[in-house]
Amino acid sequence: MRSQSLILACLIFGLCLPNNINCGNILVWHTEASHWINLKPVLETLVERGHHVTVLVPSSTLFMDVSEPAPYHYETFKVSLTKSDVENAMNKFLHFTMYEAEQMGTIEMIYKLSEIVSENLEMSLLYCDGLLKSEPVLDRLRKGKYDVLFVDPIYACSELISEMLDIPIVYSLRFSMAHSVERLCGQIPAPPSYVPGAVSKLTDNMTFSERIQNFLFYMFQDVMAMYMWKRFDKYYSDYLGRPTSFCEMMGKADIWLIRTYWDFEYPRPFLPNFKYVGGIHCRPAKPLPKDIEEFVESSGDDGVVVFSLGSMIRNMTKARANVIASALGQIPQKVLWRYSGEKPETLAPNTRLYDWIPQNDLLGHPKTKAFITHGGTNGIYEAIYHGVPMVGIPMFGDQPDNMVHMKSKGAAVIMDFNSMETKDLVDGLKAVINDPSYKENAMRLSRIHHDRPVHPRDEAVFWIEFVMRHKGAKHLRVQAHNLTWYQYHSLDVFAFLLAIIALVLFMFYKILKSCVVRCCFRSRSKSKKE
Amino acid sequence: MRSQSLILACLIFGLCLPNNINCGNILVWHTEASHWINLKPVLETLVERGHHVTVLVPSSTLFMDVSEPAPYHYETFKVSLTKSDVENAMNKFLHFTMYEAEQMGTIEMIYKLSEIVSENLEMSLLYCDGLLKSEPVLDRLRKGKYDVLFVDPIYACSELISEMLDIPIVYSLRFSMAHSVERLCGQIPAPPSYVPGAVSKLTDNMTFSERIQNFLFYMFQDVMAMYMWKRFDKYYSDYLGRPTSFCEMMGKADIWLIRTYWDFEYPRPFLPNFKYVGGIHCRPAKPLPKDIEEFVESSGDDGVVVFSLGSMIRNMTKARANVIASALGQIPQKVLWRYSGEKPETLAPNTRLYDWIPQNDLLGHPKTKAFITHGGTNGIYEAIYHGVPMVGIPMFGDQPDNMVHMKSKGAAVIMDFNSMETKDLVDGLKAVINDPSYKENAMRLSRIHHDRPVHPRDEAVFWIEFVMRHKGAKHLRVQAHNLTWYQYHSLDVFAFLLAIIALVLFMFYKILKSCVVRCCFRSRSKSKKE
Repeated sequence: MRSQSLILACLIFGLCLPNNINCGNILVWHTEASHWINLKPVLETLVERGHHVTVLVPSSTLFMDVSEPAPYHYETFKVSLTKSDVENAMNKFLHFTMYEAEQMGTIEMIYKLSEIVSENLEMSLLYCDGLLKSEPVLDRLRKGKYDVLFVDPIYACSELISEMLDIPIVYSLRFSMAHSVERLCGQIPAPPSYVPGAVSKLTDNMTFSERIQNFLFYMFQDVMAMYMWKRFDKYYSDYLGRPTSFCEMMGKADIWLIRTYWDFEYPRPFLPNFKYVGGIHCRPAKPLPKDIEEFVESSGDDGVVVFSLGSMIRNMTKARANVIASALGQIPQKVLWRYSGEKPETLAPNTRLYDWIPQNDLLGHPKTKAFITHGGTNGIYEAIYHGVPMVGIPMFGDQPDNMVHMKSKGAAVIMDFNSMETKDLVDGLKAVINDPSYKENAMRLSRIHHDRPVHPRDEAVFWIEFVMRHKGAKHLRVQAHNLTWYQYHSLDVFAFLLAIIALVLFMFYKILKSCVVRCCFRSRSKSKKE
Repeated sequence: MRSQSLILACLIFGLCLPNNINCGNILVWHTEASHWINLKPVLETLVERGHHVTVLVPSSTLFMDVSEPAPYHYETFKVSLTKSDVENAMNKFLHFTMYEAEQMGTIEMIYKLSEIVSENLEMSLLYCDGLLKSEPVLDRLRKGKYDVLFVDPIYACSELISEMLDIPIVYSLRFSMAHSVERLCGQIPAPPSYVPGAVSKLTDNMTFSERIQNFLFYMFQDVMAMYMWKRFDKYYSDYLGRPTSFCEMMGKADIWLIRTYWDFEYPRPFLPNFKYVGGIHCRPAKPLPKDIEEFVESSGDDGVVVFSLGSMIRNMTKARANVIASALGQIPQKVLWRYSGEKPETLAPNTRLYDWIPQNDLLGHPKTKAFITHGGTNGIYEAIYHGVPMVGIPMFGDQPDNMVHMKSKGAAVIMDFNSMETKDLVDGLKAVINDPSYKENAMRLSRIHHDRPVHPRDEAVFWIEFVMRHKGAKHLRVQAHNLTWYQYHSLDVFAFLLAIIALVLFMFYKILKSCVVRCCFRSRSKSKKE
């Protein structure tokens, strides 16, 4: 009945029809935090276009509030994890990356990190287990006649759901460590000589030693990834009843929507089924709430600085907060700081604390001079969208690497959260606010961001609908997926040609030797006779 | 005055303005034959959007009729070549590829081909010479305040014009042999294991021996190209008064508009400044002229076959024409054959000869069942656009390779022009007309062709205007351009790491040896004492 009325709505209002598809059924695998924030604008647009969207949500979700009204349908399933398990795991990871990692030696850090990652992977399989053992949910999914599975592959399992329901996958991905997933599973080429591995903190313009570093980083991460994936390989093979690998299954995805663009990314080779749709969530600024607008307007010609460390960091140690607050008090701008911790003693009158700020609307305000950010991709993209220079205080994950991108493009300076002093932050802020090159570069990135043939959200929606219309996009999938690694790199061809050359040289040597022997023998026997 | 009124027109009619650029000045380097046919729709759209387009035309041009009214301005320059020189060179090339090449041994064929190519390259430099010595023309160009140079790089020189006028280049390219230009100068990656070299007649799904063939084809063509370009390297260095190379200069192009798409092309890696805009010239079918429409309608349910060997082949030997005409007489369809030669004796009543046919309109007619084509990219794209299966009779250049693409995608059969017999052509025609898989595959390619986010012409125009708006597109240009070939392939990194490993192993061996010696020495001296 629901699908009938949806089709009727499509016919009446002409939704979906320009692309020759009736309203479709889209299934979405769960995700968390900023990953979920990134999927939402696409899902909302898909719903606006008349599609029916179902989001799979585990009972332990932290960020997906199924009680809130939403334009999409939630399909919840039980998992053997509680919300606090997930929260603890997240906090453990945050604490490790923010405070512990830096104090450890490399070996200890890698050991601890791999332990944390392993725990997260295990959690990923518990989600998978939860769904695959929920027979009533599976039954509804099977009857749901879904056209496509839309996934941020940060949690595994979607490949099994796609196989079970026989529907194509569209990924929405920001990055994997050193692009291991994109390279090994997606077959995207990445010469280590000029494509810095994700989170390597390198740029595309590397010195000899940086190229060595990048090369080793690729190798190390690939070995790590393949080791970690072993657990998934077994899980997937057991479930499907045939030997397979996580990577092979991921390689079947039809479209990879990459959540960056050439405003942020260094230009690099890619494949026809990789679409760079960075900035999906960006939108023009809306008017500010009255109290914030008044505070912003009171800044006069000096303008304001917007400060947020993202949705995951709401608190910090007293000492750090005081260092920061003290620096903010030394600039003529007014500062809006999203901070839920205790009010720092050094907080100056020019700085106001907020539990929440309308970040995008503030960044789009003409009085905004700079953005102090943890360097999450979403925040950076809002700054790029509005052309605001940045002071980065990166914390974990891709944040330090993201800020290196912005710094190398001349639109940001970077601070170290643990070691920065008040003066460092003051200097950094003064630089991006007073040196016009930062603003110019931020505006250049903004122009690149805005000036593309299709809006990123429309492009993402186009390719999801394309996969629905054509039941996949196999014409964009390279044959490299069907080659072994040594075939891909033509190593067997090299070996064969080298063998041929060796054989020819060997035969040439033999013939030459026999000629020499014959000549010498003849001349000797001749001289003997003489 | 002209530019003032153009700007006024822009302001009044809002042309160009949506993309924040006033009407611009576009300079176009000359080209010939189907290459010119390909540039025209883009130029016409640019003019429609309010830009002023100037096309550089040598006095010897064969295909650019400067006397005909055109929406763009022609700037002619004298060259030390006559029209008949150009015509002779073209005929020599055609005769060689159609009749001579097949009868020659490989070595003789390569020698002869390189001779013909060398002659063409020399001709290319004569065009260049003509322009660079036409002071009045150069003077007008310098005063013209051009924003961009739009070029099909089949003839060299545009890189010097771009340098002289200090304007960015946008290329429109179909292919270079084995993609040598795109790979060596444009830095596009192409693993020989699954990216068949252009004109290799291989697909992306290669056997071991085909991969060897492709690998050697890349190597051979690269060596040939670098040898051929030596002449240009010298010319360019002499003109600029500094050492440079043709390839280095080509690598400065901002955008490469490639005239294919994933309907025709095998999926492969590419770069952000490579845009696949195949099908630029395609358009819906217009009504047919009355006599042709009547002939087509008279075909009843059997429908018609459209037959053309392109704009360059208008004639063939009597024997070949009779073989073909005889085959055409054996199918129930009516046939429209574009042929200017003597009427073949075996011509059947179902076949009509035409000096010219409205090919696109015929291919778009619902009664058209098949297209007999020489396999030029333009004709193939019209067939893809309208979803018509093909019988290919390829002649020269990229045509055999193009037809392999269509055959491997299941939308065509291929005939050999010199060796085919009447029965072969009849069988081929019956196959593509009666076996539904050919029509289905042609329709699948057609759906892929039509279903993309931006029309290819709009995409081409967008990127030309982008380069005009931003004075280039350097943010899309990979750092690979600044690396040597051994840096690009990380060979120096490999060598360094191998040296380190060797050093470590050597030191390990030395230490081990000294330990063994010390142990043995001690035990021996101990036993001696004992």
